Formats: sequence, structure tokens, C-alpha cells
Amino acid sequence: MELKEYLTEKAEKVNTALDRLLPPDGKSHSKLCRAMRYSVFAGGKRIRPILVLAACEAVGGKEAEAISTACAFECIHTYSLVHDDLPSMDDDDLRRGNPTCHKKFDEATAILAGDALLTFAFQLISESAFNGADKAAALRVVFEVAHGAGPGGMVCGQMVDIESEGSEISFAELENIHILKTGALLRAAVRSGAIIGGADTDELSSLTRYAELVGLAFQIADDILDVEGSTSEIGKTVGADAKLNKATYPALIGLEESKERSRELVERAVEAISGFGPGAEPLRRIARYIVDRKN
Amino acid sequence: MELKEYLTEKAEKVNTALDRLLPPDGKSHSKLCRAMRYSVFAGGKRIRPILVLAACEAVGGKEAEAISTACAFECIHTYSLVHDDLPSMDDDDLRRGNPTCHKKFDEATAILAGDALLTFAFQLISESAFNGADKAAALRVVFEVAHGAGPGGMVCGQMVDIESEGSEISFAELENIHILKTGALLRAAVRSGAIIGGADTDELSSLTRYAELVGLAFQIADDILDVEGSTSEIGKTVGADAKLNKATYPALIGLEESKERSRELVERAVEAISGFGPGAEPLRRIARYIVDRKN
Repeated sequence: MELKEYLTEKAEKVNTALDRLLPPDGKSHSKLCRAMRYSVFAGGKRIRPILVLAACEAVGGKEAEAISTACAFECIHTYSLVHDDLPSMDDDDLRRGNPTCHKKFDEATAILAGDALLTFAFQLISESAFNGADKAAALRVVFEVAHGAGPGGMVCGQMVDIESEGSEISFAELENIHILKTGALLRAAVRSGAIIGGADTDELSSLTRYAELVGLAFQIADDILDVEGSTSEIGKTVGADAKLNKATYPALIGLEESKERSRELVERAVEAISGFGPGAEPLRRIARYIVDRKN
Repeated sequence: MELKEYLTEKAEKVNTALDRLLPPDGKSHSKLCRAMRYSVFAGGKRIRPILVLAACEAVGGKEAEAISTACAFECIHTYSLVHDDLPSMDDDDLRRGNPTCHKKFDEATAILAGDALLTFAFQLISESAFNGADKAAALRVVFEVAHGAGPGGMVCGQMVDIESEGSEISFAELENIHILKTGALLRAAVRSGAIIGGADTDELSSLTRYAELVGLAFQIADDILDVEGSTSEIGKTVGADAKLNKATYPALIGLEESKERSRELVERAVEAISGFGPGAEPLRRIARYIVDRKN
């Protein structure tokens, strides 16, 4: 199967599952649920859930046992976007070409919808055991997600990112922000899929390395897109990062070296899982796709 | 042991554990961790963690296995206060006599500190298995907490509460808001302690009933305090609810009937656990304390 078809097929499965699992929006608490669904279904590529499914597949696990957890990662990713877009944070009006949650609804609703999505993610993971996932594995996944998204990971990255705005930071500091802000959750996604799939220690260690390298490549590719992409393709104002005086790879090490570096990271990521069989082929292709994508 | 001593002893244990478990605030991401600790150590009574410990005790469980989860509940309670106090929500400058998190730090930091506390709570629960708690039980607790705090519980209550501000609501609607906003988390606390302690189905069902009745009594008592308490005793502006035109029990059914109702709920709560032995004595006394407290 071509990667494009693979991504489309998995994204559709994730979307179907999200639609089934998210609270309905026709009840008394409809505004909260409307805001949750509005943001979740605003057109993401479902990279994190697909990484969960692909990592599970790479170690021979069952997709049905990983699908709730895959959805949980999309809920967490969405919550982080909703809160990052708030006026007191990045103050963004558009996300993927649509009004951000606080613009469509209001600030209080956006804060609560983010809180609700974050909390609901853990409900989904705990419910994955109802779909046959091993309970001990599900509990390990709770740890992975909480650690990757919490004060030792993503939230910390967002805080450091905000604090560093407008001030000069070193390459090492920039890399640290990305490892926390983007990398930690991608790493948790790959590890969670592997854990649910029954990975042994060696497999988990190789997949972790893969995820860390892909995470860095992903962020560099994002920075490059911000310089090179068109507004219509990526759905936000191109050059937004530069305008905010945010540190980016192209700004710090130049565009060509950024591209070279992201390609090199991807090759090392693929190398990290060279011992895996054909089940890991989607992971290899996803890694290459990350630096080649246009949005 | 007198209840006062019991509460003091347990609160100290919870505080010691929180201090040990929360991320240190001397590292690179210190602002986030400072804000987390600032809000957690702002002087709460630790009612929710104590309910976890007391419910665990009531079914003969081990305190050491429940302490991380007890701390998780305080993290979730604190996150909810930090977000509720934000300008776009209740816009409160004071909490327990101190500046609220966004006043002490800033809005972005308060949002992220709340996010971090919520996420960290789930890390603590997953880590409770390291302290001997059963993994299947810990996973059930993840579900209880996510369900009680998420879009089917606390967050939903906060949303409905905000939506109903300034409009007339019925007694049934008021009760529904409280069941979601306050009751769901108290219920989850009692159930989680019971699950960790190894409660059987009947015990869990009785304790759930206890928790639901205590939760309602707790909210009525809070409303009464808002009318009767002094600002120095409760640490926020007395009459704040009335000023905001918020629906309260005294406003809807009068002060005397509110008192009568909260006392009756507490007696029914105590009755619900009448089959339990002396291990449930703290739970019985906590129920009575809730309507007698002065802050």
C-alpha cells in the first residue's frame, strides 16, 4: 500500500473512532461538547494516532486494542492547540484555516474544552482495556501519556517557549524546547502503541530512538514550512513565527542546513528500526513523509 | 482520635507526599513548577485526598497504596480552582486570602500550571502501582478520576455554571450543576480510595451513595458559609456569589431550609455506611464536619 493510502485509511479509522467515542453534542452540556468536537474535527492529519497504530503494528499488536489510545493522543494534541491559541498564549485567530476555538466560541469555553479533552484522553486510555488491551499495559500508557504531556514534557515546553519569546536563545535551548513541546508527545505516542502491541525491551528501546529522531525532524520540517509554505497550504499565516520573533531552525542555522539536518535525522530514525520486519514499513515511510510534506 | 486530629494528621501526610511528589521548582522549567507548587500549597484543607484515604481505610486497605492517588485528587482540585479563577471565568483576584495564580504569575502561566497539575495527577495514579497498588485497580481509578473530572463531570459542571450565570435557574438545575461541578470529583475520590482498598461490589455501592449525599451537603454548606461566614474565616469576599447573581441554595430555598437540608443529607450519608465497622468512623465524622465547619 502506498503511504498516502495508508495515512488516509488510518486517519479515517481514527476519525470514525473519535466520532464514536467523543461525548455527543446534543445533550444538556452541548456547548462544551460542541467546542470539543469543533476542535477535534477541524481537519488534523492525525499523525499522533497514526504513530500509535503504526508502532503497535510494527511489533505485531492488534489495531483494535490500540484505537482508543490512538484517539486519546489526538484529544491531547487538540487540547494543546486550543490552549496554545488563547489570547494570553499565542493569540491566534486561525487554525487550519478556521476560527480558533476561542474565536468560534469564547475564551472560557476554549479553556474548558481543552481541559475536557485532556481529561477525556485518560478516560479513553482506561477504556482501552475494555477493547482487549492488557490492563498493566494500559496503566503504563497512562504513565507515558501523562509524562509526555505533563510538566516533564509538552506543558513544560510550551512554558519555556513562551518565556523565551523575544529573547535570543541558543541552538541547544531551541532543541530542548522542541524535545519537550513536540517531541515528548510523539515519543509517548510511539511508545504507547508499542507497549499495547506487546513490545519487548529491545523493541521498545529502538522505537523510542526512532520516535525521538522523528520528533526533532518533524519540528525542523514545521519551521521550514513556515518559511517556504503558502498560507493556503498550511492554513495559518506564513511567516507567523518570524513575526513573533520566535526562534526557528532556519533563523538559527539557515534554511539549507535545516533541510539537511531534518533529512539526516529521518535517515537515523529509519536506521534505528532497521531490525524490524515489514510490519515497520509504515513507520519508515511516515518518517520520510514528515520531511517531504507540504503542509 | 478526635476528628480534628485525624484531619490534621492526614492533611500533613498529604502535604508531605505532595512536596515529595510534585516536580521540584529549582530546575530549568522553574516558573511552571513554582506556579504549580504555589497553588497546591496555598492552604487547602485537603478534603478530597482525605476522603480517598478514609475510604481506603473504611474497607481495610493500606494507606501507603492510596497516598499517590490522594495527592492526585488535590492536584485536580487545585487545577480546577486555578482555571476557575481566570479572568475569562470567575475573574477572582483572591483565593484563600492570597493572590490567585494568574495574579501572582500571569494568565498564560496559570493556564499551563492548571494543565500541568491535571496531567500530573494521572502520572501520580499510574505511579501508585509502584507503591504496591494493584495495577487493575489503578487503571479503574484512572477511569474514575477522568470520568469525575472530565466532560461527564466537573468540567461540564463548570461550563453549565458559567452558562447559567445571570439567568434564573430551577432548583433541579442548581442541583445538577453541583452534582457535576463538586459532587462528581468527591464521588470519584471516595470510590477511588475504596477501589484501591479492595472494596467489594456492595461496599463500593454503599460508599458511592455516601459520597453522593456528602457531595450535595458539602455544596449547600459552602453556599451557607458564603452568606454567614466572615471574609477572614473563609478567605474570599463574603457574599461574592450573591454579587455575581449566582444561584445558591439560600437564595433559592432560604437559609433555614438550606441548613435543614444539608443536615438531612449528612444523616442519610452516615446511614448509607451503617453496615461498616469502626474503620468507617472517620468517614462518618467527616460527613458531620462538612455541615458544621466554619470555613
